[in-house]
This record gives sequence, C-alpha cells and structure tokens, in this order.
Amino acid sequence: MTTMTNTINGSNCYLSIPDLIAKKRDGHELDAEEIKQFISGLSNGDVQDCHVGAMLMAIFIRGMTENEICSLTMSMRDSGERLKWPEYRGSVVDKHSTGGIGDKISIPLAPALAACELKVPMMAGRGLGITGGTLDKLEAIPGYQTQLTDEQIVEQITTIGCGIFSQSLKLNPADRYLYAIRDVTATVPNNALIVSSILSKKSIEDLDALVLDVKYGSSAFMKTAEQAEVLAEWLFKVSEMLGMRTCCYITEMNNPIGFSIGNAIEIQESIDLMKYKPGHSTDLEQLVCEQGGRLLVLVNKAETIEQGREMIRETFKNGSALKKFHDMIIGQGVSKTIAAQLISDDETAVRSILKLAHVQHRAIALQTGFIQSIDSSKLGTIVQRLGGGRLKSTDKIDYSIGIHLLKHVGDEIKTNEPWAILYANDDTSKRYPKFLDDLNTSLHISSTPVEPLQRIHKILC
Amino acid sequence: MTTMTNTINGSNCYLSIPDLIAKKRDGHELDAEEIKQFISGLSNGDVQDCHVGAMLMAIFIRGMTENEICSLTMSMRDSGERLKWPEYRGSVVDKHSTGGIGDKISIPLAPALAACELKVPMMAGRGLGITGGTLDKLEAIPGYQTQLTDEQIVEQITTIGCGIFSQSLKLNPADRYLYAIRDVTATVPNNALIVSSILSKKSIEDLDALVLDVKYGSSAFMKTAEQAEVLAEWLFKVSEMLGMRTCCYITEMNNPIGFSIGNAIEIQESIDLMKYKPGHSTDLEQLVCEQGGRLLVLVNKAETIEQGREMIRETFKNGSALKKFHDMIIGQGVSKTIAAQLISDDETAVRSILKLAHVQHRAIALQTGFIQSIDSSKLGTIVQRLGGGRLKSTDKIDYSIGIHLLKHVGDEIKTNEPWAILYANDDTSKRYPKFLDDLNTSLHISSTPVEPLQRIHKILC
Repeated sequence: MTTMTNTINGSNCYLSIPDLIAKKRDGHELDAEEIKQFISGLSNGDVQDCHVGAMLMAIFIRGMTENEICSLTMSMRDSGERLKWPEYRGSVVDKHSTGGIGDKISIPLAPALAACELKVPMMAGRGLGITGGTLDKLEAIPGYQTQLTDEQIVEQITTIGCGIFSQSLKLNPADRYLYAIRDVTATVPNNALIVSSILSKKSIEDLDALVLDVKYGSSAFMKTAEQAEVLAEWLFKVSEMLGMRTCCYITEMNNPIGFSIGNAIEIQESIDLMKYKPGHSTDLEQLVCEQGGRLLVLVNKAETIEQGREMIRETFKNGSALKKFHDMIIGQGVSKTIAAQLISDDETAVRSILKLAHVQHRAIALQTGFIQSIDSSKLGTIVQRLGGGRLKSTDKIDYSIGIHLLKHVGDEIKTNEPWAILYANDDTSKRYPKFLDDLNTSLHISSTPVEPLQRIHKILC
Repeated sequence: MTTMTNTINGSNCYLSIPDLIAKKRDGHELDAEEIKQFISGLSNGDVQDCHVGAMLMAIFIRGMTENEICSLTMSMRDSGERLKWPEYRGSVVDKHSTGGIGDKISIPLAPALAACELKVPMMAGRGLGITGGTLDKLEAIPGYQTQLTDEQIVEQITTIGCGIFSQSLKLNPADRYLYAIRDVTATVPNNALIVSSILSKKSIEDLDALVLDVKYGSSAFMKTAEQAEVLAEWLFKVSEMLGMRTCCYITEMNNPIGFSIGNAIEIQESIDLMKYKPGHSTDLEQLVCEQGGRLLVLVNKAETIEQGREMIRETFKNGSALKKFHDMIIGQGVSKTIAAQLISDDETAVRSILKLAHVQHRAIALQTGFIQSIDSSKLGTIVQRLGGGRLKSTDKIDYSIGIHLLKHVGDEIKTNEPWAILYANDDTSKRYPKFLDDLNTSLHISSTPVEPLQRIHKILC
C-alpha cells in the first residue's frame, strides 16, 4: 500500500489512501497534506476509481470544513498547468454563474470588460441538463473555436483583452477526473465538491477579482434562496481565501433571463444588447451592468457600483463592447466577413448567420391580465428535448432551436395575444410529444398588476 | 445510462445505477430488485469500480436494514454457481468463525461431523492479518489441495462426507469483487457488508444448518462483547431468513485457542485431539464438541446439546473422526503414505511431516502465581511477522513457524518456569526485532488463583 508521511497531532505517521478515506468516512478533518496526497494520487496511480467513488461519497455525507475545501481547491488547481498574468496584475477578472435558462450574461460581459481595459481569460463550460452552456452558444457562430492552446490564450488576452474558451486538457486534470466520477456516483450536488470544482477552475485563470452568480429557483441547481445562500457563502469565503477579490450574487432563476432561450437566438440577443438596439432586454442589461460594474469596483477601476454600471452600459452605447466582441470572435477563428456581418445593422445578414429553425409555434395567452411568471424550467426542457441541448454528453446540438419571448414578467397581456415563439423543426411532436402543453402551461397570468422581476436576492461582498 | 424497471411506492419507474447510489446515500431502503440490479451490474458491466466505491461508502455510513442485507446476500449468492445437495437434504452442515488466534476448530470438526454421518462441504478462507486461515494451516500437510473442481467437491462429499476447500472462481464472483474493493476503500468493518459476505459464501453451500462463531477480544475483529453481539444478531437473523437453521456463538478471543499458534503446529494439535491423546487441549475439545454437538441438534441427529457433544467426543475417542480426516486429506491430494503416517502413533513420523522451525526460544515466567491471561494478539503478531502469516496477499507462508503453549489460563506457574516455546528461524531478530519483548509481555500473572477460561459468552439459537 502506498504511503507518505503526514503530520497528525504533531507527530509523524503514515497514512495510506484507505486510511485517508477512513478518516473522512469517520467525519474527521483532512489536513492540507492529506488532501494533496489524495489529489496527487489521481495522477500518480495511487488513487483509483474505487477510491475516488468512496472518498467522494464520504465527503458528500460527512461534509468538509472551509480549510478542507480551500486545500482541495488548491490541490486541484495545482494538478495541471496554470495561466499567469504578472504583466496585467490588478486587471484580470472573470465571472462564473451556476447556470440558468437564457443565461447569456458572459457573452456581452467579457467584451464590455475588455472595452474597459480589463483582461478576461474566461474558461467557460458546456450545457448541463436543461441549462445551456456559454461555449455551446458561441459555437452557433460559424467558425468559432473554443479549444485554444495556451499560446493562443495568451495572444488573445494580450491583443484583444478577452477570450471565451474551454478548459484545455493540461489545465486542472484533477477536476475533470473527479467530475467524471461525481457525475455517475450521485455526488454532484454537494457544496464542498461544487465549490472546489468551480474555484479550482477559476483560480487557474490567475484572477485579481471574481464575480460569482449563484442562482436559485425552479430551473436552477439550487431550488431555494436558502440553499443558494449557503453555497454562496462557501464560494465567497473560499474564493477570498484563495486570494481573489470576490463578490457573490444570489439571483432568482424561476423566470428566463432576457427574451431568448436557445443557442443561436441567445447570441442574437447578446449582439442586440452590445448594439444597444431599442427593445433589447433590460433584465439582461441590468444583470450584465451590475456584474461587470462590480468587477470594475473590485479592481478599483470604478469608485462606486453606480459608476461601474455606467461604465459597462457606456461600452454598449458607444459600440466599444461590440468592437471587442468582433475582435474576440475573429481571434477565435470566425471569418472577418461573418464577424463584420454580425456587428452590422443588416438584421437579415445577422439572421442568415445565426439561423433559427423554420417551424414557428406561437404561444398565446389564455386570459387577460399581467404576467406573473414564466416557467423557465419547462421552456428550458422544450429547447433541450427538441435538440437545443443534450440528453447525453455525446449528443450534437441543434443551434437553431430556440424560444423568443415577446413579453416578460410584469407585462400586460390580453387573451389570444402571443407571448412567445418557438423555433423548431418538423419532428417536434415526435421528439417531445408534450411540448405544446409545456409551452402553454409555462405562462402564469395574474388579474392584478405584477411588479417587474427582482433578480438580485442578495449580494455578498 | 442503463436503467431497468423498478417498483417504488407501487408505481413503475426507472432507476439508473447513480439513482440507486443516491437512494442509499440519502438513507433510504433499497428493495430486493434494486439490490439485484446493482449486483447484476457487477458482471454485466453496468456497475464500475467508482460506483462500487461510492455505494459501499454509502452503505457503510447509512447502514442497511435486515431486508436489505438479506437481499444483498441472496443477490451475491446468485452471482455465480451454487452447490446443490438434494440427496442429502437434512444432513448438510457447516460452521463459520470470524477468526481468531489458534483457531483450528474446523480441522477436527469437519471429520467429526462426517463421522456422525453429516455432510460438510466446508469452503474455508486464508489468513487475514494476524488471524490464521484454515486453508493455510491445511496446506502445511504436503500435497493438500485446496482448489477443487465442482465435480471433486461432489465426489468428496458423497464418498467421504467432508471436504475443506477454497471458494472456486465460479462461486460468488460478486463477493470477490466487492471484497477486493472494500479492502482498499475503508469499508471492511461494517456489519451489513460483513454479514452479506459471510452468509453469501455459506448459503452457496446449500446448508441445512450453520453454526456461527463470532469472536470478540484483543485479537478479534470485534473488540468488545457488545460489538460482537450486534454482529451476531444480524448474522443469526439473516441466516435464518435465508433458510438455514442457525446457532450463533459469541466467544472470547483475548487468549489463544488451545496450546498452539502457527500452521504445521496447529495441524499437529488438531490431530492430537482426533487421536484423543492425553494432554490434548480441553479448551479446544470443548469448543469443537460444543459447536459440533449444536449442529447435530440443529439437524435433529441429537436430542440435546449434551447428547450432541458426547457424539462428537465419541468420534475422537473411537478414532472415527481421525479415519475421516485420513480419507479427507487423501481425497484432497495427500499421499496415502503421508496420511497413514499422520494418523499413526509414531510421533517422530508426524513431526517429520509437520516440521517446525529449528530455533527454539523459551519464554519463562518472571514471577510466581496463576496465569491470568495470554495476549493472543501479541503472539499472533509474532507468528505473522516471523513468516507464519502474510503482511501482503502475495507473501508466501512459512508453515514451520509456531508457538507451543506449555501452560494456559488458570494454571499455576513459578518464576523462571517456561510457559511457551517459539519455533523460529535464524532471522528472527531481523524480521521482527521486538519479538522477545512481545513474547515476554504477553503473559499476565496473578498472585491469586484464576478461574479457567470461560470461552462462551452468549449463544443465539
């Protein structure tokens, strides 16, 4: 049995991998060296799949302390290569969201921050369940490359300031290993493991500041605000322990963000915001300005959050974010022609690139009143089932599937008035027989006026 | 993800392997179909090492109900082939011990039961830690084969009545798989997993009656009588649920059983009992007669335990057990010459076959008084470290290492009187530097008279 020296209660003794598992099994705290030993074992062969399954389950049931989570995160971060930005110290930022329906915040945010002269080396993820993924959305743009070499990342951040890419195989192999096993051993929904997974990825980016967006609600991972608050507190504490200036938002995720759900359609909406087109979603705009503004405050580029929000909004109004977006996607493989068309005023050209599926199903209101809520879980499921998301990791995504909301929470609506358009293919009923039922029952109407959506439940700063 | 139909709360639904793990993770009871699905998955590829690690840890921490343990045991039993004895219905018996120091009970017991016309298809185990294994001891007899084919087992039981052999690869593959993973994931010491492992092996033998011997004490798996009682109750209940008439003994295991510890030396002592030689261990005799007598009662071959004990004792007195032992070892590969020599009165011939190591270390008493206890854990460790046991599973055993006790608990002893002889090789100090210290400190002497050993703490019947 492979062993190494550990110091417990001040005396040197040897703990084997099974001993480490037993210690956590019995609810004791693992020290930094012990956690490092376990994570190192993932790559040196001491730790095998059965050990990982047992350890993850022990962690799931027994929990971890702040110190343990911090040690776990650092060991995972150090399991592979890391990005380093000594020349941009004080300017490197990112944000992470736990995932929602219609959540395209990162897409306009990264260029807006770059337009404010910050550096945004954003490692993003794929769709998970009904929750869309930033990388999948960006791949709706023909030619967009998510896999960059370390050299390409450095080039992109140096010359443009922002890039949205996938985690390369050299970065954080421990997280990939652990996540693959968590996924099949019922150990995903655990705060210690969620925090270490998220923050190990983010700390690889060598950030000065990080904004976290923990969502709660019917379509979020956390169903209640209370659950989200617990996770947010762990994330905030551990992120600060890791040396990142951190702000953690707890936001509502019962209703979709903005007016669109899907891949190509969310890129359209993101571009609309960056063009500051009339009629763009104020819901989306507020979230982007809030989180971007907060990052500007965290790195002392803005004095107040109000000033920070205005700086972000200004990048949309003056087109500088759109220009950064244009440069970013060219840097990541999109042709100059397509990039130019996407940022042009020619709506037809944009739509010919970001194609939507050809069958339109209109959802209409069944009564007159005010929109109280829109069930993002049902709408997310429709898009996923019709091919806009994955049921298993090898599924190919149909970027053209999408839902366009014509109204949002608080809006007045009349009987028979359309409130959403579903863009789909001919095989809709076959792929998801109850799509129409889900579509119609996802709108809830009140007979009395409804307050506009209050997204932000709490901020930990 | 592979799924199958399960009935939960009366409605059919699909549970995947991760769903099953999650159910146990959250402390819910798995039903028989679900447990069967998991165990089937071990052979059909649905269940992988990481799943097993996670499920074992969830079981370890959350526990299992009687019904779950029973289902798990049956699923494991059914994972491979089973022995069948329809022609001997009512006569097939076995015993199992959780393991102790000097525990050679099975070796005279199986022939004694066969001499009483019972059938004893005894699947035995190897040494584990400091605890010796019946198979290792029998292999001290030159030529003894522990691996029999199913046909050889049938032949042995039909013609002789008893056989002591190892579990073939076709029997209970689930137990082998689970045990290998328990061994490295800190999930061995759990009652649900211990009970299912023991009873799945025993129920493969198609028994009518089973005697279980759960030991407690310094050299046993269970340190206290209370822990042993809990395990014994589970074993008793589940064994009865599986249709075996069962009796469970809870016995003391601080002091070694009989006068010998080691492999060749324990075979010598077993033969001495079967020869009913003057000076044989009454401690050993009483345990063998008690457990054998109980099996005779359980299958209605004896009316009372007193009668049962006497029937077993008689097989030693009249030489019928010794004759069965002779036939059994010939049936399992020992030459007729060696078998004849072993049962002969020629002590020199016996010792030339069951050789002991050539260096003798005598342990002497440091004070006058009565022997209060003999630390079987220390003596077991000496034998193991000097080569009589294994430190890792691939170690080869030196059958010649052994300890011969000249005195036992309750005996009077004088200063400088020898109480034990250690048979060892020249490399003793090198292999285990503190062997002399362990040997000397394992004897505890009282200045006032000491009651003889009371082995049996409790009987569940």
